[in-house]
Amino acid sequence: MGLKSVSETKLNPNVSVDCVIFGFDSEKLKVLLIDRGQEPGAESEKVYALPGNLIKTDENLDQAADRVLKELTGLKNIYLEQFGSFGNPDRLNKESDLQWLKSIRAEPDARVITVAYYSLIKIDQYELHASSFAKEAFWYDIDDLPTLGFDHLEIIEAGLKELKFKSKYEPLGFELLPEKFTLSQLKHLYEAILGTDLDKRNFRRKILKKDFLIPLEEKQIGVPHKPAQYFVFNKKKYEDYRQNVDDFYFQL
Amino acid sequence: MGLKSVSETKLNPNVSVDCVIFGFDSEKLKVLLIDRGQEPGAESEKVYALPGNLIKTDENLDQAADRVLKELTGLKNIYLEQFGSFGNPDRLNKESDLQWLKSIRAEPDARVITVAYYSLIKIDQYELHASSFAKEAFWYDIDDLPTLGFDHLEIIEAGLKELKFKSKYEPLGFELLPEKFTLSQLKHLYEAILGTDLDKRNFRRKILKKDFLIPLEEKQIGVPHKPAQYFVFNKKKYEDYRQNVDDFYFQL
Repeated sequence: MGLKSVSETKLNPNVSVDCVIFGFDSEKLKVLLIDRGQEPGAESEKVYALPGNLIKTDENLDQAADRVLKELTGLKNIYLEQFGSFGNPDRLNKESDLQWLKSIRAEPDARVITVAYYSLIKIDQYELHASSFAKEAFWYDIDDLPTLGFDHLEIIEAGLKELKFKSKYEPLGFELLPEKFTLSQLKHLYEAILGTDLDKRNFRRKILKKDFLIPLEEKQIGVPHKPAQYFVFNKKKYEDYRQNVDDFYFQL
Repeated sequence: MGLKSVSETKLNPNVSVDCVIFGFDSEKLKVLLIDRGQEPGAESEKVYALPGNLIKTDENLDQAADRVLKELTGLKNIYLEQFGSFGNPDRLNKESDLQWLKSIRAEPDARVITVAYYSLIKIDQYELHASSFAKEAFWYDIDDLPTLGFDHLEIIEAGLKELKFKSKYEPLGFELLPEKFTLSQLKHLYEAILGTDLDKRNFRRKILKKDFLIPLEEKQIGVPHKPAQYFVFNKKKYEDYRQNVDDFYFQL
């Protein structure tokens, strides 16, 4: 077994965690991927995957997700929320995935069930530092993803579905935007999450009517178009608004 | 290893599924439990647990949940929805659980991560038939649960939290009620899900205003109080109503 077994003995061969980290760069919705590298001897190309790995014997699932994300991408103190587990028997059906597992795992043939987590972060507030088996970590446009290892595309799609659902009931978008943002950025974000174009005037009217955006005096500078006004999010007003809607809603 | 290993070899030692099946008997919210029995030689008492077991090598998680529920309780063709995975390293911390596992499992000490499913069913439409290691299956009041094996209490509490959340946005309650029901039964159900008392007159006024209940000519018979009117649920009207609320809500 050699050196490999020293750390491998502490890993559960059948259970992993994977992290779907969403970000937004004012234009596009992004997801965080790593280049996990290929098995030794293979042609040197990037192999894209979600940050994920087996859980350790002495940690719970949440702890495993925190550790794995930090080990592979350098991101820490991120609020991760579990959104589903993936356990199709054919998750491992590509020869390249199997060869890669053989190069790093004690039981490469073991069936692995993965518990998926997601998070929304402001891209500009975190630096990425790939380490462990991740050679690099990058933000990728959600609507232009490369080929991914295992069933990671399916996991990202499920995460996006969760994001769409939650965006109806929670002010999720504001976790992805910078502190101050323009209405155009907010519109782009919702278009990316909902996967649909929104009418500019309707959007403006509806969102401003809701009264939980605070307009700032400040405007964009150094942009090649007419500078847009900045807004910040009034969380208190949003909570009030939400309470009213909850009362109006089916809840009795 | 003997006979035990014949079926055990097909089970994944580290991953199980557990089912939280909610029902309602017109008065109380219930959850389906089994008597899993004790290890051989122990004093004969009931040992309560959720219907759950290890997954098999050749099935996915949804299939495992369907199979395990059917094997232990006889329930089949139930729509099960995954709501979370539970993997604390100390899930197996009671001697009685360990002794029981030793009596039925090939690797009783293995750390098991469980994927939890939930469902809502009309109690009166299903018969229970315990088999496999379940000696009996019964409906238990959610607010008067017995001591449970492993972390099953925590799993039920998480399922109930999911149910509360969903009950704000979906007409879940109607899946638990008989086809025709009284307003009093509907009120009891929502009180059970939300864990709070509701004012009778406000409840009546609010729910009737929503216009998706259809009053029937028919009234209760053989009840010791003034017979109450029956209602049925108008799913079409509810969907219309919901669409309006979605538009009113945060969705843009």
